[in-house]
Amino acid sequence: MKLMTLKKRSRMPSSRLALQEKEMRAKFLLSGSNPKRKVLSKNPAKIDALLKKNIRAIGVDDGYFKPRTIGRTKIVAVLQRVDGRIEGILCSDVEIDGFDSTSQIVKMLKDNQEKFLGQAEVIFLGGVNFAGFNIADVKTLHAELALPIIIVFRKMPRMKKIFKALEKFPDASKRKELLKNAGRIYKADRICFQCVGLRPYEARGLIKRFSIHSNLPEPVRIAHIVASAVTLGRSTAP
Amino acid sequence: MKLMTLKKRSRMPSSRLALQEKEMRAKFLLSGSNPKRKVLSKNPAKIDALLKKNIRAIGVDDGYFKPRTIGRTKIVAVLQRVDGRIEGILCSDVEIDGFDSTSQIVKMLKDNQEKFLGQAEVIFLGGVNFAGFNIADVKTLHAELALPIIIVFRKMPRMKKIFKALEKFPDASKRKELLKNAGRIYKADRICFQCVGLRPYEARGLIKRFSIHSNLPEPVRIAHIVASAVTLGRSTAP
Repeated sequence: MKLMTLKKRSRMPSSRLALQEKEMRAKFLLSGSNPKRKVLSKNPAKIDALLKKNIRAIGVDDGYFKPRTIGRTKIVAVLQRVDGRIEGILCSDVEIDGFDSTSQIVKMLKDNQEKFLGQAEVIFLGGVNFAGFNIADVKTLHAELALPIIIVFRKMPRMKKIFKALEKFPDASKRKELLKNAGRIYKADRICFQCVGLRPYEARGLIKRFSIHSNLPEPVRIAHIVASAVTLGRSTAP
Repeated sequence: MKLMTLKKRSRMPSSRLALQEKEMRAKFLLSGSNPKRKVLSKNPAKIDALLKKNIRAIGVDDGYFKPRTIGRTKIVAVLQRVDGRIEGILCSDVEIDGFDSTSQIVKMLKDNQEKFLGQAEVIFLGGVNFAGFNIADVKTLHAELALPIIIVFRKMPRMKKIFKALEKFPDASKRKELLKNAGRIYKADRICFQCVGLRPYEARGLIKRFSIHSNLPEPVRIAHIVASAVTLGRSTAP
């Protein structure tokens, strides 16, 4: 398919070519939920070449909160170009240990469809749990936002410990279900990740492209810095 | 002086050289308040070469507020490397039409001396007035923070209009004094600026180096985006 595109290139007007490439890219990035789709390439270099030069990603992370208290904390979304340019930031809040992280993320991004959500081609989350155990339903996020989702962690999460901590909640089974929804944990170069709506090797390629200044994808790093600064007065290390 | 340094380079151990360069840079950047200092170079290219590759700057801007109301709005400081890496963010607040912008900026930055203020070599302000007519005393800022200060504007401020608006305040003369403190307004490539603690051609060089993704120095652009997102929920164009 790649070869065909390259052959046709010279005969097609550039506007139509751009459209075709855009469609191909969209198909490639959005087809994750369809198990029947064809794999375009297993080579990360080719995936890289397929993606437009200045694709954008959204990074989401939460701010500081005092664990096991009643209240809310900030949640921040950053839209960033792969060359590092920050295009915009959104700010909302979630309940500590509540159940509204999924709906709050969907609302925040859908309310800003044109200038924010519509610009991005992938969403990075700084973990599945926001404000303690307010666990996001990543499958709902993927379906509602129509974008592939990559959840990144610095270290492999200790699932046994997390499941034990969840036992204290009256609705532990519901929260466990949400955690399991995020699927298998994979390893990238120096971080761990889960992915919904795209294949692990595609996620690895995107993580690599967006990790400009650290091991973390830059939109998530900035979202963490902003959210911690807003809630603490000074940013903490992501 | 430049030639002498270049000649000696080969005979000196690299650590001593680095120290000498650092001292020279510090002297160069900090000597603005001393009218007797020698100008190292009038050539922006040479100034560029004198500055370390990854120097850092702080950008300060304020968030949204409803004009002529009683209350406070957020003020955000961003520490950013000249290659675009955001190193940290601070967040504080200032009174609408009050007098605390100078003290709040000094406090916010001095409270974070080691990881924030001490890392920067210049401060960019997104205007002298924060939260309406809470005008910062840039000479005090320069003296207290021991860093050169560059105030940037997208358009030439209409001083007549501003002075007229100030007339409504009972302490108009005090505010006018603060405004005049910032000195003459110069033109850079596509923006206007005032500078305290360094010469206009040095300021032009620094503005050019830090304007990575737009006409504005990147730390001020990011400070605006963060401050507007925190106060409005969604960032506005800087």
